[in-house]
Amino acid sequence: MPRIRVVLVEPKSEGNVGAVARAMRNFGVDDLTLVKPCPMGAEARKRAMHGADVLEAARIVGTVEEALRGVDLVVGTSGIDTASEKRFARIAIPPRELAARIGPMDGVVALVFGREDFGLFDDELSRCDALVTIPASDEYPILNVSHAAAILLYEAFAARVPKKGARKASGLEKEKLYGALAELMSVTEYPAHKRGRTMIMFRRLLGRAVPSKWEFHALMGVLQRATKRIRKLEGKP
Amino acid sequence: MPRIRVVLVEPKSEGNVGAVARAMRNFGVDDLTLVKPCPMGAEARKRAMHGADVLEAARIVGTVEEALRGVDLVVGTSGIDTASEKRFARIAIPPRELAARIGPMDGVVALVFGREDFGLFDDELSRCDALVTIPASDEYPILNVSHAAAILLYEAFAARVPKKGARKASGLEKEKLYGALAELMSVTEYPAHKRGRTMIMFRRLLGRAVPSKWEFHALMGVLQRATKRIRKLEGKP
Repeated sequence: MPRIRVVLVEPKSEGNVGAVARAMRNFGVDDLTLVKPCPMGAEARKRAMHGADVLEAARIVGTVEEALRGVDLVVGTSGIDTASEKRFARIAIPPRELAARIGPMDGVVALVFGREDFGLFDDELSRCDALVTIPASDEYPILNVSHAAAILLYEAFAARVPKKGARKASGLEKEKLYGALAELMSVTEYPAHKRGRTMIMFRRLLGRAVPSKWEFHALMGVLQRATKRIRKLEGKP
Repeated sequence: MPRIRVVLVEPKSEGNVGAVARAMRNFGVDDLTLVKPCPMGAEARKRAMHGADVLEAARIVGTVEEALRGVDLVVGTSGIDTASEKRFARIAIPPRELAARIGPMDGVVALVFGREDFGLFDDELSRCDALVTIPASDEYPILNVSHAAAILLYEAFAARVPKKGARKASGLEKEKLYGALAELMSVTEYPAHKRGRTMIMFRRLLGRAVPSKWEFHALMGVLQRATKRIRKLEGKP
């Protein structure tokens, strides 16, 4: 997977820069380059929170070209996805597609964000190898720059981190659970003609829920305990 | 698809509330409920931008219960995804899975965001039907609340909007393109033993690129023009 560099072109709000630094820290990215930024002060640091080190280490340069030195793939961001196929310089892909494409790459990928008010200019866009637009409401598609950065970094992070999840109950375990339910229905003398459909409902429910091992043990415990209790009370071992 | 209500519990920063309102506007969501918020002023309105109307219309309530009245599914957000399967109240699903689950729903889904510093308390978490955590760096997984909201709303929006994109070139069009390349290789007397693999490479390249109709026409134009030009120069019609 590639290293990601975040490039902010002429940001006007130090708060936004701080917020971007925080989002970078959240998603394990630390290469921040600022092209002719506004002065950075207390507001930037406050908004950066634990991303203050990213902000401190930010490289400040005078031109976009300088910011892109050593970059293998330049990805521009645009708040407006054009409907016109002829305005090809502004045809963009969605963030998820971008993440899937850069995932297997090596080298350095730059995510370039434009000015808060005017975005990236045409000559800057034409320098980009790919353009990305975040799908949003037609009425107001322009996101705050730190929100846009957070979403792209989130997608890039999600593409590289294998989803960890609770260990799932095995098929055998689920069968044991169904057996435990059947036993409980039996000892409770649950109406025989209703047992079949109740069992199916239970299977469907667990099928949708995809229980974890822990949830399996918890459910088993409840069912078996109830069955044992009833047996004991009835004097049957 | 459901209506989404964003619930912020005891937000301390009016700037954050404004930023959330903007993100809501970006993703076409307008139901904002604030539980015991800080006072709202100029900073909130400034950060809300075109989401100022969402902010103005926000409902202010005194308890989480009140905020959740009329809600069909309560989704809590947690910055910490527990590794312990025993702390089941904090086992969460990722945003994409949430979006896929709520996509087919009707009714009202509440996305509940906790305090900037302490998140949601255990009794508030236990009121939730589902918990969502945004996968992030282990070193600093706590996102700014407006970033978290933007990411969840982005996922919900992406799940309901069919991806629009440039019309893709058809299989027939791509075959025409390969034919045009073969013709060009022929007229240029490209080494015969190399043509096969060049063609394969070209196919693979276009296979990965998924060209649009416009890109197809553009490429065809280039290839055919070159072929015609060579034929004309060679005096062959």
